[in-house]
Amino acid sequence: MKFRVRCRLDYALHSPATLIFLCRASRTPPQSLSFEHLALRPDAPAELVVTPPAENRFDRVSIARASTLSLTYEAGGETACRRVPADSLRRAAPGRVQADHLPFLLPSRYCQSDRLGRLAWRKFGSIRNPYDQVLGITRWIHENVEYLPGITTSMTSAYDTVTQCAGVCRDFAHLGIALCRALAIPARYVAAYSPKLALPDFHACFEVFIAGQWLLFDATQKSPPDALIRIGTGRDAADVSVCTAFGMVTLTFQEVRCECLDGGLHGIGADEMETTAISFDPPRR
Amino acid sequence: MKFRVRCRLDYALHSPATLIFLCRASRTPPQSLSFEHLALRPDAPAELVVTPPAENRFDRVSIARASTLSLTYEAGGETACRRVPADSLRRAAPGRVQADHLPFLLPSRYCQSDRLGRLAWRKFGSIRNPYDQVLGITRWIHENVEYLPGITTSMTSAYDTVTQCAGVCRDFAHLGIALCRALAIPARYVAAYSPKLALPDFHACFEVFIAGQWLLFDATQKSPPDALIRIGTGRDAADVSVCTAFGMVTLTFQEVRCECLDGGLHGIGADEMETTAISFDPPRR
Amino acid sequence: MKFRVRCRLDYALHSPATLIFLCRASRTPPQSLSFEHLALRPDAPAELVVTPPAENRFDRVSIARASTLSLTYEAGGETACRRVPADSLRRAAPGRVQADHLPFLLPSRYCQSDRLGRLAWRKFGSIRNPYDQVLGITRWIHENVEYLPGITTSMTSAYDTVTQCAGVCRDFAHLGIALCRALAIPARYVAAYSPKLALPDFHACFEVFIAGQWLLFDATQKSPPDALIRIGTGRDAADVSVCTAFGMVTLTFQEVRCECLDGGLHGIGADEMETTAISFDPPRR
Amino acid sequence: MKFRVRCRLDYALHSPATLIFLCRASRTPPQSLSFEHLALRPDAPAELVVTPPAENRFDRVSIARASTLSLTYEAGGETACRRVPADSLRRAAPGRVQADHLPFLLPSRYCQSDRLGRLAWRKFGSIRNPYDQVLGITRWIHENVEYLPGITTSMTSAYDTVTQCAGVCRDFAHLGIALCRALAIPARYVAAYSPKLALPDFHACFEVFIAGQWLLFDATQKSPPDALIRIGTGRDAADVSVCTAFGMVTLTFQEVRCECLDGGLHGIGADEMETTAISFDPPRR
Repeated sequence: MKFRVRCRLDYALHSPATLIFLCRASRTPPQSLSFEHLALRPDAPAELVVTPPAENRFDRVSIARASTLSLTYEAGGETACRRVPADSLRRAAPGRVQADHLPFLLPSRYCQSDRLGRLAWRKFGSIRNPYDQVLGITRWIHENVEYLPGITTSMTSAYDTVTQCAGVCRDFAHLGIALCRALAIPARYVAAYSPKLALPDFHACFEVFIAGQWLLFDATQKSPPDALIRIGTGRDAADVSVCTAFGMVTLTFQEVRCECLDGGLHGIGADEMETTAISFDPPRR
Repeated sequence: MKFRVRCRLDYALHSPATLIFLCRASRTPPQSLSFEHLALRPDAPAELVVTPPAENRFDRVSIARASTLSLTYEAGGETACRRVPADSLRRAAPGRVQADHLPFLLPSRYCQSDRLGRLAWRKFGSIRNPYDQVLGITRWIHENVEYLPGITTSMTSAYDTVTQCAGVCRDFAHLGIALCRALAIPARYVAAYSPKLALPDFHACFEVFIAGQWLLFDATQKSPPDALIRIGTGRDAADVSVCTAFGMVTLTFQEVRCECLDGGLHGIGADEMETTAISFDPPRR
Repeated sequence: MKFRVRCRLDYALHSPATLIFLCRASRTPPQSLSFEHLALRPDAPAELVVTPPAENRFDRVSIARASTLSLTYEAGGETACRRVPADSLRRAAPGRVQADHLPFLLPSRYCQSDRLGRLAWRKFGSIRNPYDQVLGITRWIHENVEYLPGITTSMTSAYDTVTQCAGVCRDFAHLGIALCRALAIPARYVAAYSPKLALPDFHACFEVFIAGQWLLFDATQKSPPDALIRIGTGRDAADVSVCTAFGMVTLTFQEVRCECLDGGLHGIGADEMETTAISFDPPRR
Repeated sequence: MKFRVRCRLDYALHSPATLIFLCRASRTPPQSLSFEHLALRPDAPAELVVTPPAENRFDRVSIARASTLSLTYEAGGETACRRVPADSLRRAAPGRVQADHLPFLLPSRYCQSDRLGRLAWRKFGSIRNPYDQVLGITRWIHENVEYLPGITTSMTSAYDTVTQCAGVCRDFAHLGIALCRALAIPARYVAAYSPKLALPDFHACFEVFIAGQWLLFDATQKSPPDALIRIGTGRDAADVSVCTAFGMVTLTFQEVRCECLDGGLHGIGADEMETTAISFDPPRR
């Protein structure tokens, strides 16, 4: 899929502040960029900070006094996912914990898997294999949580969403991650652009590690999981926030655009995932 | 400081379970081990999992059926800290965010720095330099939080401790970390053995990154920060729990021992930290 | 049902303290007492405080210095419930809000009906009449919450129990009440003795107001709702705590006994409630 | 003080709904009304529900289908408070718990006095008499909590405000109430109109029971406590919400007006409360 993304973010700074942006499209394979351009108005030096292992590319900006700041970003590139037969996943032997995955098994700011353990085991514990467990979790979230902007805040966590039964993509992803981790399935948060959202915005979904690869799931069903331009990957939204601000900072305007440039992207349907999983891992040798 | 540590942990497993232990003393410089021995009863294969960057050394054990499990660990070794003149820290220019430190600036499971921002700025925002801010935070916690076992649980977070005003070392560390991060000071959790605790137990304190090095603080004042044998380092207790269990598992017995073998360890006093900070970073070239 | 109840409560007072006990069996009709005896050791003046409208009978004791305090209570009496045909409840026209019931429609300390609204409507909103809604709620709680002592504390609320899926009678009652109030059904907490508990203890269940009367429900299924000796009634456990203490007070011992004296009490089964509801309201003229 | 109040509230009803309004000025002595007028558009029958003991006057409206609803209310009347010399309060013997006050000593939805006990005792426990304790609490809240609209929601409780350090009148009152109850001082929530608010809105403050009377406190210092037209009294905001809605209901417009008609109302200053307390209880015989 060839894509083009664009965003604009305006902030009011009520004090000196440091802002750490994460809005660049990833260029970790299989995703690559043909161009990108990030501009700040007023002009200010931005330091690129790249964090292993997911290679999230942050832009760090320090502003010495109260002012406004406008960021525009534009990029074009290409990405591709692999379709993985679900049956091979169902038959795979349970994997070993890898050192890199441990953080994705542990509770995090918005994914209190330690508190959702009993719920996860009661609802999904008897399902035979991890792939079907994740499918079950995704379906359960879709059925029990209403997609409803304006209900949740940046404080809302998976613990809340179970009870509040409403939220946006971020909340859907957090709940999916927390339930997977409670079942000992490594799960991580993916911040992304998507060309398929009815209302263009930043998007979020989650990946789980099964049978040697990360597989993408989206409980919102607002965007097919194969139609995704990755921004970054982390434990939860705290790791890959569009803007982490130190100081008194208010977002005053936001605009997001994302286009698929090669026409006929259908996108995999929720039902198709019974037979086919989606992975953005580079092809294995 | 030469040391010897020992622990025994007994568990009842009510179901098949995977347990990930973190009780080995670190052997990342400046700490080194002359011997170590870990045993499981009944005997079971343990897989060593070492996570970068802090090189925490986990032992992963999977048990296929309900049973009991007893772990004993023993190790001897040596460690050393450096004393850093506080004035050099006070004069240091503010550092840049390094990629490795970003996770230690963001909110985590038990350290909701996003929710403690106003409190941190109101209480400590006008203090001139990061070192004195952390000293102020440590002193404030010591004065406002009662060291009281049995009040808090593994669910208790920094957000709770502000209001509940009581807790154990883990809670003191979480609150310190959350307040530091809210002030844009990288802060991380240290799980440790300590020879100085009146009641031998696992201990916890925290490190902050100032002027190019990690400095150790302990708001409990139960153990001097230079008398510490590190087990591991993480964002908070979720990363370096003695035992992360997947399955129905209950701790039935715990015993911890830690001795300093070279006699006259005094340990730095809380007052001395006005002039001298403690760092366990290896000497810089 | 003729009954005899007894309890003993021992406390350590670490400071001067005021304790407000609620352990007396109610003598509001249809329940009556043939005798009762309350004693404090060391002897201390207890002031009886009776609160309308439910006529809870509190004993207020002020102790001027750190000490121990032991309360023993014993009473005998009689109570009776009415069986109400469920179909008459199903057919009843929706009632008007009465002034006395308003408090039982609003959120309270442990029953945050304001936060459980969406859950309640999604799960039970399409059920036709209030009686079947409450039956549905009771069944859902029984199926989704595990009766498990030791998991929850006096801080645990309905909001937590939805996610934690475990608790004791108090938690079951709170969740039932919160869901009913969210559906605009007045619901209140009942503290009680029960002769049917396998492990003798204080018990809790809840009442809802439908078709002109309060009806008793018990989602734990540990005690049939018609086998209940009422202690008191309130918005939730905060109103009818066995002991509300002001000061530093620890419970050191508790023993509860409750016997049914007229032999063959069967108790209504959970299934029978499809056709028959239980009310402890006095017969209507 | 002669007053005139007015409010308009517009709602969108997305489903059939029952709304319980509490916007009428109280006419419990010493407050009286010379006229009042409540209108609904479209016209709908409103049932007046008066709850003891505080005699809150609710209007209950049931609307059978999705629609809009606009309420306007207007009233005029008179009220008067008494000034009570603080020294007489300081010297008063500690009172006995009265049955009517018990609910105001217990934790409630937004005032978790059970969780704020240690904080209350550490900060205010050593102050000699209840009146100075409440003054200390009011001052501490004013100094530590920022008056900042838009930060808190209808979910925010006293437990949150301790940490978030920001809120509106409702949050200030909840925190004051929770701290007072933790110190065994009966405290209740007062919903009110105030002619002194810079931005006209519904207001909230709290009353405590000392030396035989209810005394009014306002930690916001936005309105002097003697310049208050009472709407209702309750345990916390849950009891005296302007509108408690059952169904899917959104507030779309709100306007509040309140005038003092007899000119020279100065209002008591925060400093004056060192020597003079304010009570709206009717004069005692």
